[in-house]
Amino acid sequence: MLTVNAYVATAATEPLAPTTVERREVGPHDVLIEIKYCGICHSDISHARSEWGEQVYPIVPGHECESCLKGEEQYCLKGNTLTYGGIDKDGTITQGGYSTHVVVTEDFVVRIPEGIDLDEAAPLLCAGITTYSPLRHWGAGPGKQVAVIGLGGLGHLAVKLAHAMGAEVTVLSQSLKKMDDGLRLGADHYHATSDPATFEQLVGTFDLIVNTVSAKLDLDAHLGLLAVNGALVNVGAPAEPLSLNVFSLIMRGRSYAGSLIGGIRETQEMLDFCAEHGIGSEIEVIPADKINEAYDRVLASDVRYRFVIDTSTLA
Amino acid sequence: MLTVNAYVATAATEPLAPTTVERREVGPHDVLIEIKYCGICHSDISHARSEWGEQVYPIVPGHECESCLKGEEQYCLKGNTLTYGGIDKDGTITQGGYSTHVVVTEDFVVRIPEGIDLDEAAPLLCAGITTYSPLRHWGAGPGKQVAVIGLGGLGHLAVKLAHAMGAEVTVLSQSLKKMDDGLRLGADHYHATSDPATFEQLVGTFDLIVNTVSAKLDLDAHLGLLAVNGALVNVGAPAEPLSLNVFSLIMRGRSYAGSLIGGIRETQEMLDFCAEHGIGSEIEVIPADKINEAYDRVLASDVRYRFVIDTSTLA
Repeated sequence: MLTVNAYVATAATEPLAPTTVERREVGPHDVLIEIKYCGICHSDISHARSEWGEQVYPIVPGHECESCLKGEEQYCLKGNTLTYGGIDKDGTITQGGYSTHVVVTEDFVVRIPEGIDLDEAAPLLCAGITTYSPLRHWGAGPGKQVAVIGLGGLGHLAVKLAHAMGAEVTVLSQSLKKMDDGLRLGADHYHATSDPATFEQLVGTFDLIVNTVSAKLDLDAHLGLLAVNGALVNVGAPAEPLSLNVFSLIMRGRSYAGSLIGGIRETQEMLDFCAEHGIGSEIEVIPADKINEAYDRVLASDVRYRFVIDTSTLA
Repeated sequence: MLTVNAYVATAATEPLAPTTVERREVGPHDVLIEIKYCGICHSDISHARSEWGEQVYPIVPGHECESCLKGEEQYCLKGNTLTYGGIDKDGTITQGGYSTHVVVTEDFVVRIPEGIDLDEAAPLLCAGITTYSPLRHWGAGPGKQVAVIGLGGLGHLAVKLAHAMGAEVTVLSQSLKKMDDGLRLGADHYHATSDPATFEQLVGTFDLIVNTVSAKLDLDAHLGLLAVNGALVNVGAPAEPLSLNVFSLIMRGRSYAGSLIGGIRETQEMLDFCAEHGIGSEIEVIPADKINEAYDRVLASDVRYRFVIDTSTLA
């Protein structure tokens, strides 16, 4: 066994703390990866605090490490293996990327191309692929009108990616507070969803809307912004059911869809695309002892746009 | 003006009765069509009885006539012109196909190919294209698992069409009452949705589910039957909103979509496809004076599978 440094949640209500964690011996089809940076995803917080179901503690969060996306192939009918808090093939509980090293099966390793800094690459492994996959699946490209709901960790990458794919990009955000950022990142237009005029002005406009916001939203109003045969794709979701008027779909041949991260092949494709187009995440690098503070700031939406842990600080 | 025989609804609560109706003079880009047969669609009843909003009476229902689909291009953003009860370009109210003749703009005429009897062709102009369009759009074909919810006027054509496209076809019906029919029409499997085992046995099975039933259904349970990247498409809808758990979509990359009839080009393509594959509607031909009785039987689901009016009886 390998003992490596990590940051761990010991209970749902406790702050994270430094610790060590065991990694399995490197087997014949395993790869030992030295983790340089790991992004902080909102879902790390939900898991660490058992908000999405009871976790087994201690747990090391972190799936935006520069190495692997276990939890792949993400839609596996046999159940996927989550990067942390999942049950590995050997029966042990997986532990995540807030850590210096990880051992993974060789089939679940991707290559970070030259030209992307490792710290800016970390969030691509979750926020990047989560938005890249539906943009590709639903044909974002030249001549297409793409809207992104929410300009956060996922949304800011969705804007960069859709812009690089050649689509005309609109941000739909609660307010106009981040408009300058949105336009700088590649958006062509920026509208506030708190302004009812937005829903009149943009009715029937978009071929694709990627919804990166997990809060409940007025589905019929947003579906109304789709053009004929357009699709609204959720990559996050509220825990409660949403309701919709089916005529919102029928009268324009629209779709309402969901998408979950992406497969390993597509993740590599996304990384290569990002390298080619100079796309990285906008980040704030922090030492490990600022993780708990960063969690509070994520929950307050006070981050532009992703915290990344420098794991060299895991002394 | 041309005065032609027709069957008319004079009020929401009155039975239909014989009458005459005026058709416009045949203009330079018009076609005068002699109507041989006209199908009875459930939506005719809803319109005749003002259930989908107040109608202007008198109104001649009927949009499954062997001639035209006005109300096209169906998704026109300027608003489509409905076959009856709509406002035509000249400002008059359109009147439908329970009638001996109709005058239509040449752009909205389709050709019934040799090899389909006109009476069996009539329902193809609505029920046929309504199911053909989503089957094509969502890629029904060899190697694909297609389910059809409901074996009625739309559903029985969906089964024939999906089977002719080469898909493996499953009927999901309330009960097993029509199973023999379903298998004869081309279904490979037949399951009762009243049996909870259906939802366990078929979880994750279908690439495409076409829902032809307008009644409210348990959306999450039915979405659970979709395979990865599968789509459930409604071609009818309940008036009340439906609710769904967005995770039903996200965890398998699924879509929930709507579809409305089809365009003129696709309607012609559907007719040619039906001729090539020997597909017509299963029908019961009735004289005009049985229309009111037929309405009652449609509402009681007592028709296999479409009533078609022989307009030669409009004396």
